[in-house]
Amino acid sequence: MKVLIINGPNLNFLGIREKNVYGNTTYEEMCSYLYKEAKKLQVPIDIVQSNIEGEIINFIQDAYDKYDGIIINAGAYTHYSIAIFDAIKSVSINTIEVHLSNIYAREEFRQKSVTAPACIGQICGFGKYGYVMALNALLQK
Amino acid sequence: MKVLIINGPNLNFLGIREKNVYGNTTYEEMCSYLYKEAKKLQVPIDIVQSNIEGEIINFIQDAYDKYDGIIINAGAYTHYSIAIFDAIKSVSINTIEVHLSNIYAREEFRQKSVTAPACIGQICGFGKYGYVMALNALLQK
Amino acid sequence: MKVLIINGPNLNFLGIREKNVYGNTTYEEMCSYLYKEAKKLQVPIDIVQSNIEGEIINFIQDAYDKYDGIIINAGAYTHYSIAIFDAIKSVSINTIEVHLSNIYAREEFRQKSVTAPACIGQICGFGKYGYVMALNALLQK
Amino acid sequence: MKVLIINGPNLNFLGIREKNVYGNTTYEEMCSYLYKEAKKLQVPIDIVQSNIEGEIINFIQDAYDKYDGIIINAGAYTHYSIAIFDAIKSVSINTIEVHLSNIYAREEFRQKSVTAPACIGQICGFGKYGYVMALNALLQK
Amino acid sequence: MKVLIINGPNLNFLGIREKNVYGNTTYEEMCSYLYKEAKKLQVPIDIVQSNIEGEIINFIQDAYDKYDGIIINAGAYTHYSIAIFDAIKSVSINTIEVHLSNIYAREEFRQKSVTAPACIGQICGFGKYGYVMALNALLQK
Amino acid sequence: MKVLIINGPNLNFLGIREKNVYGNTTYEEMCSYLYKEAKKLQVPIDIVQSNIEGEIINFIQDAYDKYDGIIINAGAYTHYSIAIFDAIKSVSINTIEVHLSNIYAREEFRQKSVTAPACIGQICGFGKYGYVMALNALLQK
Amino acid sequence: MKVLIINGPNLNFLGIREKNVYGNTTYEEMCSYLYKEAKKLQVPIDIVQSNIEGEIINFIQDAYDKYDGIIINAGAYTHYSIAIFDAIKSVSINTIEVHLSNIYAREEFRQKSVTAPACIGQICGFGKYGYVMALNALLQK
Amino acid sequence: MKVLIINGPNLNFLGIREKNVYGNTTYEEMCSYLYKEAKKLQVPIDIVQSNIEGEIINFIQDAYDKYDGIIINAGAYTHYSIAIFDAIKSVSINTIEVHLSNIYAREEFRQKSVTAPACIGQICGFGKYGYVMALNALLQK
Amino acid sequence: MKVLIINGPNLNFLGIREKNVYGNTTYEEMCSYLYKEAKKLQVPIDIVQSNIEGEIINFIQDAYDKYDGIIINAGAYTHYSIAIFDAIKSVSINTIEVHLSNIYAREEFRQKSVTAPACIGQICGFGKYGYVMALNALLQK
Amino acid sequence: MKVLIINGPNLNFLGIREKNVYGNTTYEEMCSYLYKEAKKLQVPIDIVQSNIEGEIINFIQDAYDKYDGIIINAGAYTHYSIAIFDAIKSVSINTIEVHLSNIYAREEFRQKSVTAPACIGQICGFGKYGYVMALNALLQK
Amino acid sequence: MKVLIINGPNLNFLGIREKNVYGNTTYEEMCSYLYKEAKKLQVPIDIVQSNIEGEIINFIQDAYDKYDGIIINAGAYTHYSIAIFDAIKSVSINTIEVHLSNIYAREEFRQKSVTAPACIGQICGFGKYGYVMALNALLQK
Amino acid sequence: MKVLIINGPNLNFLGIREKNVYGNTTYEEMCSYLYKEAKKLQVPIDIVQSNIEGEIINFIQDAYDKYDGIIINAGAYTHYSIAIFDAIKSVSINTIEVHLSNIYAREEFRQKSVTAPACIGQICGFGKYGYVMALNALLQK
Repeated sequence: MKVLIINGPNLNFLGIREKNVYGNTTYEEMCSYLYKEAKKLQVPIDIVQSNIEGEIINFIQDAYDKYDGIIINAGAYTHYSIAIFDAIKSVSINTIEVHLSNIYAREEFRQKSVTAPACIGQICGFGKYGYVMALNALLQK
Repeated sequence: MKVLIINGPNLNFLGIREKNVYGNTTYEEMCSYLYKEAKKLQVPIDIVQSNIEGEIINFIQDAYDKYDGIIINAGAYTHYSIAIFDAIKSVSINTIEVHLSNIYAREEFRQKSVTAPACIGQICGFGKYGYVMALNALLQK
Repeated sequence: MKVLIINGPNLNFLGIREKNVYGNTTYEEMCSYLYKEAKKLQVPIDIVQSNIEGEIINFIQDAYDKYDGIIINAGAYTHYSIAIFDAIKSVSINTIEVHLSNIYAREEFRQKSVTAPACIGQICGFGKYGYVMALNALLQK
Repeated sequence: MKVLIINGPNLNFLGIREKNVYGNTTYEEMCSYLYKEAKKLQVPIDIVQSNIEGEIINFIQDAYDKYDGIIINAGAYTHYSIAIFDAIKSVSINTIEVHLSNIYAREEFRQKSVTAPACIGQICGFGKYGYVMALNALLQK
Repeated sequence: MKVLIINGPNLNFLGIREKNVYGNTTYEEMCSYLYKEAKKLQVPIDIVQSNIEGEIINFIQDAYDKYDGIIINAGAYTHYSIAIFDAIKSVSINTIEVHLSNIYAREEFRQKSVTAPACIGQICGFGKYGYVMALNALLQK
Repeated sequence: MKVLIINGPNLNFLGIREKNVYGNTTYEEMCSYLYKEAKKLQVPIDIVQSNIEGEIINFIQDAYDKYDGIIINAGAYTHYSIAIFDAIKSVSINTIEVHLSNIYAREEFRQKSVTAPACIGQICGFGKYGYVMALNALLQK
Repeated sequence: MKVLIINGPNLNFLGIREKNVYGNTTYEEMCSYLYKEAKKLQVPIDIVQSNIEGEIINFIQDAYDKYDGIIINAGAYTHYSIAIFDAIKSVSINTIEVHLSNIYAREEFRQKSVTAPACIGQICGFGKYGYVMALNALLQK
Repeated sequence: MKVLIINGPNLNFLGIREKNVYGNTTYEEMCSYLYKEAKKLQVPIDIVQSNIEGEIINFIQDAYDKYDGIIINAGAYTHYSIAIFDAIKSVSINTIEVHLSNIYAREEFRQKSVTAPACIGQICGFGKYGYVMALNALLQK
Repeated sequence: MKVLIINGPNLNFLGIREKNVYGNTTYEEMCSYLYKEAKKLQVPIDIVQSNIEGEIINFIQDAYDKYDGIIINAGAYTHYSIAIFDAIKSVSINTIEVHLSNIYAREEFRQKSVTAPACIGQICGFGKYGYVMALNALLQK
Repeated sequence: MKVLIINGPNLNFLGIREKNVYGNTTYEEMCSYLYKEAKKLQVPIDIVQSNIEGEIINFIQDAYDKYDGIIINAGAYTHYSIAIFDAIKSVSINTIEVHLSNIYAREEFRQKSVTAPACIGQICGFGKYGYVMALNALLQK
Repeated sequence: MKVLIINGPNLNFLGIREKNVYGNTTYEEMCSYLYKEAKKLQVPIDIVQSNIEGEIINFIQDAYDKYDGIIINAGAYTHYSIAIFDAIKSVSINTIEVHLSNIYAREEFRQKSVTAPACIGQICGFGKYGYVMALNALLQK
Repeated sequence: MKVLIINGPNLNFLGIREKNVYGNTTYEEMCSYLYKEAKKLQVPIDIVQSNIEGEIINFIQDAYDKYDGIIINAGAYTHYSIAIFDAIKSVSINTIEVHLSNIYAREEFRQKSVTAPACIGQICGFGKYGYVMALNALLQK
């Protein structure tokens, strides 16, 4: 079992970006944390990030036949990218949507996920630990 | 650390209710599973269920000063109960919202959660395992 | 064949409540009428009433394996109770929705039924006779 | 007492049209069934059908002073014909709206009736038997 | 100068139809009145009526090259017939929309005219006299 | 019989204002025309104009017990002044709404009249002649 | 004259619940205050509270023929309970709606009252003193 | 403590205006009543009225540093005047909104208050006595 | 293989009707062109036209068992005729929707097709050539 | 070149009004600043202010033939005054809309400008310096 | 005459992606088919594909002065990319929108095209043959 | 002080693109003009352009710690890119939004800015001079 973690726009600015919402952990620290946790679970993972909508689609397509699961935090694209929704549907890999913050307790426009219907489930509000929960859930399947 | 799991309307009909959506596991089997998993995590839990909106509010209020965390699956009330939203806000206990199915992949009216903004996070789509994820997330805090 | 008739909020105030809309017949008189008519049709019926949304759900669940048909007049809950909709779906009993008044000729918010999609049909506008029509329709099935 | 049954667009294609929704009975079979049932009830009936909105209005107007009741299944016009609504109001004859299928369990646009507010009641979801229920209801008045 | 007056659905039921809204004058009386008034103004007129949307379109098309002005009261079709709107645009004849009652003081759905944007003006609320006002307005052009 | 004509904001700029919509006639020329036409009809009229919503209300209130009819062109206030609507209702004088242009053939926001439901009728699209039509209609009553 | 004060969901958590919105006074303190103030006004009152929508309906029905006035603070049910609206209409007792906070200065969904149209008036924004205002207003009638 | 009472458009027509809604008391009688009641409470008051939105803003601004409280019945402006909302916010004087009728039991557009969020509370449905309730509430602060 | 081409309201006025949108070709010229092109493709076609919604439904029903394909340009009915949508579904013949102009580049209300979901595809913006494209597409199937 | 600066409701309360939004500068200080800056640019300016919507229209009309440019901050009227929009269109003077604060970062209702479509451009978010930017932009034309 | 075919996100996954919707043909097979068909028509074509919204804009801009026609299938971007709409408008090349499936018979959000108003026409529902239809239509112009 | 100017999709087609809206100046000419004007103001600037949403986010992130101000014209992305909104918020650099045309006087969908709430202000309608205004405004801060 091999898992690809895809992070979307502005996640590389963790630790710089609105700290009151996202905390002080930098993106690099979060990645290290995830590699370490995945190792504990004995799941090989890769982490990729892009600010470009179409590159995220490329990541998803490239995962085809190479990964058994995808964990995606599509950032702001979550709320309007039908193209990412289509990409997830195209590859038929078990995909879980993760958000660091509780999107329900924020602006109206963040309470709607366009991409989630293509996923098997969604986890939000648990910070970086949410990715670990997603890893566990993929293992459970 | 002590956790209260609150289940809302029709969850007691698991295993009877729309099996294509919710699977064959009965409510009793799910409860046993949760008690066993909680024991593994060494977290004492209680599980309550009611079909009555106001009783769910009573459960939440009764948790005040007795539990350190709440896991709630408010069933259909999730989608319109401002009163449960208010109750969760009233008691200031870390609360996590859980749904068995991926609410984003179902009817339009199930894609909106009125209660989630009062919670620290939401988990949906992972069946009974979602409750275990929530327990882990509470421990993590 | 055995049928459960479930009446929702404020129906027990028939004969007291807005007589220009609902007429002078009291709730007790309506029940007697229904028992008599059901006897003519040789269908054993039970009639229950509650103002509490969750109790109506309990009635529906309790009907499971005990009744062959349900006739429900969920009163005002008709227009917003996703929980009752779920309950009807849960038990897989032939259910018919009845309303005393023509809900299409009243306030905008009464013209939408949230519970009807879970039923096999709906009858409205025929006063207490609507229940008899529903009994006949259940017999017909 | 004399009753006119008016059927709207595409009802003449019963038995050909989407059988999974409307069943195998042809329009002619349904008419025979209705004439037979009406005879049992000793109510003289006439049945007319048209695909043309304005002809349905003509049928309603022609009923003026000739019939004591109308049973109408205006088919798709139910959902947008203010003109038929006006026609029913114009003639002041007791009119009952019937639908073969449960319109609440179908597409969004079929869940709204523009013509029902001009009727005394509505019956839906009981197939051809719905017309017999309507006949009984007219007798009851 | 020659003018065609087109009346839409249910106008032929004037004097029978909802008298509290439309008054006691019958359709025949209104026509006589209009012929008389038109004579006074020395404008030859023809009056046609149909309950069928498409026939109203036929009337409009037939007016092409035969009449210099159209006065139309499209009845309920006013509120949804894009086809009549298109027809008026097709023939390029000065057309005035008339309504017997003040459509602004009635149901929400009567306060929107789909056909008026294709006309040079609209007159409503003055009963049968509204047609005479329209005749005068056509003369004035 | 005495009639007050009330003109609202920017009507005093007729002949200067968007000539492609409103034509070349100046406000003064229109007033002369109206006084002359009223004289022909032997109806004494007064014409007032204001850009201030509340002064238009003052005009309406001052008309109480002094005039038998009001003709109002409330300009842009037509589309949002509930206060003018209330004023017309307050004085119980027969009031007719007039617009120079066909408001249905213009911007969306001009197609809705907030004040018309308080009037007996509305006339639009006939330029300054619309006021004369309104005078005639008041005489007709 | 005898008055019933009905408090809805979460009001029993006053003093615990979101103190920045509702202040420090506990529910018990508020009740004592109200009993004392009612005594000054020589109006016998009873105060009841429930988190359950249907029990609030029971309270209203039980008031029938026993109380001359009702003061209701239906909490979050205010915003969606058509059933409570129906109950108030059923009993024909003068009822006043009270809210502790100014509901207009809060979330969008709290700015709409479904129950107020069944009441004679509404008072909001004055804390516990609002109930006293309501008592005075009932006396005034 | 000194209070300014501001009345908006058409309130000066009390006793003339739609008596079925607002009663027979004239504006002058209401003012006398209020002066008398204020005297009993030993609160000096001034009462002003205008039909002009901007003059109401002037009244509010002029109250700055001269009055300790404002009671405002902005009439129809209540429903659309963001400018009055801004004015109340500008002067930082405790302001209470009053309506004679229960705005919730009237037209849809009267059920929304644009100005209330700038006030400390709102009172509606109690006729002229509502102003006295407001005076008491200001004293209570 | 045999194909029926159905044209809806106002298409018979091509060449007369708004030439800036639809061009100078008359309806007769278009029909000749289509017969010629169909001949080239060796597909026998029939062309019918009606302004009456219900007659278009009749055409569709009459095609049952006689034609292998339908090409329909329902004109303005495209945007609101659920009855035509139903008719197309009833006959289970491959149907293609054609529009002369690009409906997406016109008024908002022309950008929504109610009938297209019952078709296998839609072609718009290519004038009379669009019908030939549709013929080719039917051949291709 | 001569420019008129028009300020709308509540701008005269700058320095008093919500200082957290608008800062400490008083209206008089802002005017002095603008006269000084205009002098530097050698543009004669006049500054007027009113709380009355119709007076702002008067200002705009009076500018006709007297000024070469208008800078308008219509305050809250920006969001609903179609009448001011009409006035700007009437006089055909280059007009620029200015707002002190960034209206996009405030309440929903402030994010829509009804008057801006009649202007050549809009500047917001730069405090009093925004007027100087507008002056420069007018010079640039 | 030279034509550029632009394919958007996920089209490169044809034959892998949701086969029930899009069929078994792979993207490469579709491209070969199109090159072959274009050759038959003697039209030189180029085919490009990208998952990146901005690259699709680059393709469109690069076509400027190099191609005489564009055929675009913007995939999911069709439904929200105003930027692609702008790009098509920028280059003034005849552009035709193509969709493999009948977008009208799918999810609500696929029934709206943001890019089509910039095109001369749209073809949907005919699979890969739709591109050939588009080529023919470009030749026809 | 150093400023980055970011131009979004299709701006590189200035002078080619819809000249009636954007004028004849080419993108290169506009850049020269801006470098020259910035030199006058002694502000070093860099200008970048991309059609790709994610690259614009990259530009914004790269500006972090390198520039003191950003001027952004995000083109069509302005209206839907929550990701760019997030990026601007992430870097905490003073950012000003500029549009060449008056977005309020164009299509409905261009009148809403998703990115402006993250900026300190917005300038629109002044063509290329708008960037100079923005530079001045940044200097002013």
